[in-house]
Amino acid sequence: MTATTRERMIETAARLLQHRGYHGISLNEILTEANAPRGSLYFHFPGGKDQLVLEATRSTVALTTEFLRTKLSSSKSPATAVRAFIEETARMMEASDYTFGCPVAPVILDGAEGVAELEQVCRQAFEEWVGLIRDALVAAGMAPARADTLALMIEASHEGSFLICRAYRDTAPLMKVARELETVIHTALSEAAAR
Amino acid sequence: MTATTRERMIETAARLLQHRGYHGISLNEILTEANAPRGSLYFHFPGGKDQLVLEATRSTVALTTEFLRTKLSSSKSPATAVRAFIEETARMMEASDYTFGCPVAPVILDGAEGVAELEQVCRQAFEEWVGLIRDALVAAGMAPARADTLALMIEASHEGSFLICRAYRDTAPLMKVARELETVIHTALSEAAAR
Repeated sequence: MTATTRERMIETAARLLQHRGYHGISLNEILTEANAPRGSLYFHFPGGKDQLVLEATRSTVALTTEFLRTKLSSSKSPATAVRAFIEETARMMEASDYTFGCPVAPVILDGAEGVAELEQVCRQAFEEWVGLIRDALVAAGMAPARADTLALMIEASHEGSFLICRAYRDTAPLMKVARELETVIHTALSEAAAR
Repeated sequence: MTATTRERMIETAARLLQHRGYHGISLNEILTEANAPRGSLYFHFPGGKDQLVLEATRSTVALTTEFLRTKLSSSKSPATAVRAFIEETARMMEASDYTFGCPVAPVILDGAEGVAELEQVCRQAFEEWVGLIRDALVAAGMAPARADTLALMIEASHEGSFLICRAYRDTAPLMKVARELETVIHTALSEAAAR
């Protein structure tokens, strides 16, 4: 029972954060949507809003990392994997009526600079995602230096397209970028193979 | 004198918005930083915070569009232009101590959905930026269909790298993505020329 309230609060905070960022959510709203009693916030999260936001962000980052890892290891090529990964996140965005998005972007843009641990979680998230893509590119035959910058560009385009899709309330930009990235990765791998 | 107060308020709002988004700024803070008297907000902006944010966003979007247009028209290749444009925004970000960024991203991610005109300004900004890059790619010989998706990917990567740089408080990700995009555009243009 106690665990359930805590989990509901984390899940609610994660969902609202993706939609409106750190400053855009209130504790009252989280308590109401999570159907949690008023006193439960400081019982479960003695560090208050910062702790709740931190745990919510950590939990969504971990889910995203697992999802990306599975896609990359189950596809024949990183080109296909990246495209499929981005297309699936586009469908999740559409299904959520455009409230779903990157778990760290709204926290970063919304000025979480005050909270050192939260900043670190965001940086670690990028580190892990770019690292997973980079390793898959290297495993497919790309030189590490090129894999480094290409992986970063892939992660950056995914982030950016989430934003553009939200502005349009349309998944077309994510779908187009997914297709373009497949082409770019495929070309870069063919160049590497030709050397 | 009146014009100056109004301009200072727009400039201050634009700067704070890029740093902390729609919900992260308060009117009091804008008035204080702009050194504007309390009564001046509704005198200059009868629509209150929404109108001020709208005008501030419009003004920064216009500056960015002009800057991108100049870069594209004064460079010999869109590959060089995109790299130079992104590198310059990276230097501006560093000079601002990481408060400078995309003028529309924080407004979108921060849940400006309530404000229809603000949503429209954000969509028009992407439309213009992607359109300028697309036209430059087509002028350099790329097929329109490919130029469409590549231009969108370029814009998305720029957006995303701003975010990643802010998380790291380091311009290295923008610099790396700028270099990678130059390579990708160059390769795509060479492929187009070989056909």
